[in-house]
Amino acid sequence: MAKSKYTYVRDFEREEQLLPSTWLVVRIDGQGFTGFTSKHKFTKPNDIRALHLMNRAAKVVMENMVEIVLAYGESDEYSFVFSKKAKAYDRRASKLITLLVSKFTAAYVFYWSEFFPDTPLQFPPAFDGRVVAYPSDRIMRDYLCWRQADCHINNMYNTCFWLLVNQGGMSQRDAEKRLNGTLSRDKHELLFSEFGVNYNNEQEIFKKGSVLVREQVPIDVVDKDGNNIQRQKTVVQIRHCDIIGDAFWREHPEILSKQA
Amino acid sequence: MAKSKYTYVRDFEREEQLLPSTWLVVRIDGQGFTGFTSKHKFTKPNDIRALHLMNRAAKVVMENMVEIVLAYGESDEYSFVFSKKAKAYDRRASKLITLLVSKFTAAYVFYWSEFFPDTPLQFPPAFDGRVVAYPSDRIMRDYLCWRQADCHINNMYNTCFWLLVNQGGMSQRDAEKRLNGTLSRDKHELLFSEFGVNYNNEQEIFKKGSVLVREQVPIDVVDKDGNNIQRQKTVVQIRHCDIIGDAFWREHPEILSKQA
Amino acid sequence: MAKSKYTYVRDFEREEQLLPSTWLVVRIDGQGFTGFTSKHKFTKPNDIRALHLMNRAAKVVMENMVEIVLAYGESDEYSFVFSKKAKAYDRRASKLITLLVSKFTAAYVFYWSEFFPDTPLQFPPAFDGRVVAYPSDRIMRDYLCWRQADCHINNMYNTCFWLLVNQGGMSQRDAEKRLNGTLSRDKHELLFSEFGVNYNNEQEIFKKGSVLVREQVPIDVVDKDGNNIQRQKTVVQIRHCDIIGDAFWREHPEILSKQA
Amino acid sequence: MAKSKYTYVRDFEREEQLLPSTWLVVRIDGQGFTGFTSKHKFTKPNDIRALHLMNRAAKVVMENMVEIVLAYGESDEYSFVFSKKAKAYDRRASKLITLLVSKFTAAYVFYWSEFFPDTPLQFPPAFDGRVVAYPSDRIMRDYLCWRQADCHINNMYNTCFWLLVNQGGMSQRDAEKRLNGTLSRDKHELLFSEFGVNYNNEQEIFKKGSVLVREQVPIDVVDKDGNNIQRQKTVVQIRHCDIIGDAFWREHPEILSKQA
Repeated sequence: MAKSKYTYVRDFEREEQLLPSTWLVVRIDGQGFTGFTSKHKFTKPNDIRALHLMNRAAKVVMENMVEIVLAYGESDEYSFVFSKKAKAYDRRASKLITLLVSKFTAAYVFYWSEFFPDTPLQFPPAFDGRVVAYPSDRIMRDYLCWRQADCHINNMYNTCFWLLVNQGGMSQRDAEKRLNGTLSRDKHELLFSEFGVNYNNEQEIFKKGSVLVREQVPIDVVDKDGNNIQRQKTVVQIRHCDIIGDAFWREHPEILSKQA
Repeated sequence: MAKSKYTYVRDFEREEQLLPSTWLVVRIDGQGFTGFTSKHKFTKPNDIRALHLMNRAAKVVMENMVEIVLAYGESDEYSFVFSKKAKAYDRRASKLITLLVSKFTAAYVFYWSEFFPDTPLQFPPAFDGRVVAYPSDRIMRDYLCWRQADCHINNMYNTCFWLLVNQGGMSQRDAEKRLNGTLSRDKHELLFSEFGVNYNNEQEIFKKGSVLVREQVPIDVVDKDGNNIQRQKTVVQIRHCDIIGDAFWREHPEILSKQA
Repeated sequence: MAKSKYTYVRDFEREEQLLPSTWLVVRIDGQGFTGFTSKHKFTKPNDIRALHLMNRAAKVVMENMVEIVLAYGESDEYSFVFSKKAKAYDRRASKLITLLVSKFTAAYVFYWSEFFPDTPLQFPPAFDGRVVAYPSDRIMRDYLCWRQADCHINNMYNTCFWLLVNQGGMSQRDAEKRLNGTLSRDKHELLFSEFGVNYNNEQEIFKKGSVLVREQVPIDVVDKDGNNIQRQKTVVQIRHCDIIGDAFWREHPEILSKQA
Repeated sequence: MAKSKYTYVRDFEREEQLLPSTWLVVRIDGQGFTGFTSKHKFTKPNDIRALHLMNRAAKVVMENMVEIVLAYGESDEYSFVFSKKAKAYDRRASKLITLLVSKFTAAYVFYWSEFFPDTPLQFPPAFDGRVVAYPSDRIMRDYLCWRQADCHINNMYNTCFWLLVNQGGMSQRDAEKRLNGTLSRDKHELLFSEFGVNYNNEQEIFKKGSVLVREQVPIDVVDKDGNNIQRQKTVVQIRHCDIIGDAFWREHPEILSKQA
């Protein structure tokens, strides 16, 4: 940028740097997606195409920002967990959140037609984003538990709600009333007795959301002598597994241990 | 969001609210656009299609966020000026910058093919964003002067540089050396004497950048009795005018006066 | 500070810089002064010795920090207004508020015995402090109006309250009930009819609080030839005047004009 | 505070809340103490009266703010470590630092004459303060290591410097030159060979600084039947011990363990 007598305006810029040695979690969230999903006729309670598109966009972000160690998505939101040691953009909050949300949004629009070949995008969507610093492994894991518990609770509710409306012929208001105050076991029972649905058999992507992790996979390469050899390559994998219990963290020890 | 024993993680969220009664300027900037423009074969020094696409995306943003009173764009950057009284998202910095940058990016990808019908988008681009609060009219205007002076200086330099390279047959390094230390009048002279180019006749969009303002335009509507009548409608207009001097501000008194 | 392998801990320091070209107001406030005043038997509703001590400490602060253009005190609080152009400590919030509150507190304890010769200080008092940035002259003035209106309302209430208790023989609870819901004119009437007190004749320092400003005063100096000559010197003066209306600001035009 | 049309000015107040579950360290530091110590003729390199006064003031702070688990002082600075769980003033940064620095300063002036009976305080001193959040035990301990290492290095340097000046008859400039580039062992050697001083025999308070911790001490109380019985009481103790190694932390396990 050229120097000039106007350059003093830069003195008004403020830059928040996020505390070092803390987990940084950026969560993005669709803006006005009630209208967006209705306009694009998303199936209810879950539109598998939309979830796969979210995952595709999240994968672009994760390939682009190498300090993200894990991402978790459900519905129209996605959380990206940066390593405690992450140095990207000097941990400047506004750089981090704007570049991430921008890359995600661009990918969402860019890949739209792959996942919705018969539904042209009607208008540009938008996502908001925020970043939070978590000082310990336990609290960062509790953050993810919070989101996965949220996914579970919402999905069970929505599964009941849309069955009551679409198959049960109820109005949305009546379905809401019917579900008001019900516990988890009541909903299990309702699904089974009224619609013959065993909630446990629902798709894992609906019940658990999507977990993006980096994993080593073997790949075949040809060496200089023309021999096939195997190498390890790190790729972003999509899982729909439980991340609340310890099993996931034992299977991916590098996520926490790299931080020591 | 469902309540749970994990909800305590919300206590770690921090939200910066921007000072009331200050002008808020959000500036967004293309990330790694040297590579992006080269990959998509943008013409040098200016690609008119790319500038029109930037303006199109900025117009979407301005139609979407009604408290923006003016936007200014040049090259791969755009500045959006929010009213001192703006209340959007309670002036929360992260909401404001992420939603704006996300909407802009989505529109950029969404409208790409309209402006680049023969150049498929190769990969999703990204923009970063920041917000700055300016306490007085004068300082806000000086911010815009800073950007328009930057546009002028860069455009004159780039016009010379690419003529030396493309028509003068110089290497990029030699062109850089040739321009090193030259003043504005030297560049005017170089353009005229070596390439017969009168810089003053260059396109205004290149020399001045683009200014988006809301203006009243007359529109014809049909009233209930079937008569054609004229009404005023506020639309976002694109100008390529000087915003450093006072003339522009006299012609758009509502920008400053609404703030009293 | 010596360099060592531990120096990395400095990376965790965060420093908030206050927005340039805004008025900075630091307000300090006695901590737990209900207990402090009772322990030291302050007279009610106002203890003139305590107010003079507050003023003395504020004067030390203002002589120490030359960018303070005005200070306003009432009861156990004081507000210090820094010039919009103030550069002290690079406008770092924590430096500004801690040094100011520390200097004030030190002066309060240092000068205690001057104002309370017969009442030894029982324990070290404390003041808290905060800083707020105000972007325009009008808003900064409204801040001061807010504090002076607060002084007026509290003083009228307290004058009534303690007369009811001390001269009227009411319990504190009854006095509170008696005043509940009364307007300004009711209190004027109560003071006059029940206690023969004309509120307008109360001391200005009680009704208006204290205003510290810098003023030029003539001083006599002796020049090198031994002649008496007059010079101007800037000193901090204590006033008990209205700062809500325009008169004060017209009489002290330098406060606002120096800021242009 | 009374409501009025001016109350809107409160909307400009900003309050930084420090990240939960992090150690908070407030460090205060004498302002312009080179001048202050010279004015009050502090002995060099260390004035034991001044150190004891600092400790006295720090003890007042620690008795006043019960969430402080440890304090460390050297020279004219003091660091106060708040529990990771500290909730004081909702972890609002400005409240925390102003009240702490104000209480410390008040105590410093209040107790001055106890430690300097023959040296009247000439003018009110001031301390600045800042707060830093540290996310892990290790980093908080490294902070304390940083300060104690600083104490050691400065004290060894100053011990040499003032011996060279006071006993060696050197000018301050020559003493500085003489010490320039010397390592720790060079300074040990210099002290021993030139002044017969074994640095290891210097007072611990000079070499290690002062550590304030809460410890249980037995106290004799008389019960309702008139019998003497022993109770435990928590008191603030002053130590001059190493806090870099693990021994101190093993002896005070409650400091870290209470945080789990």
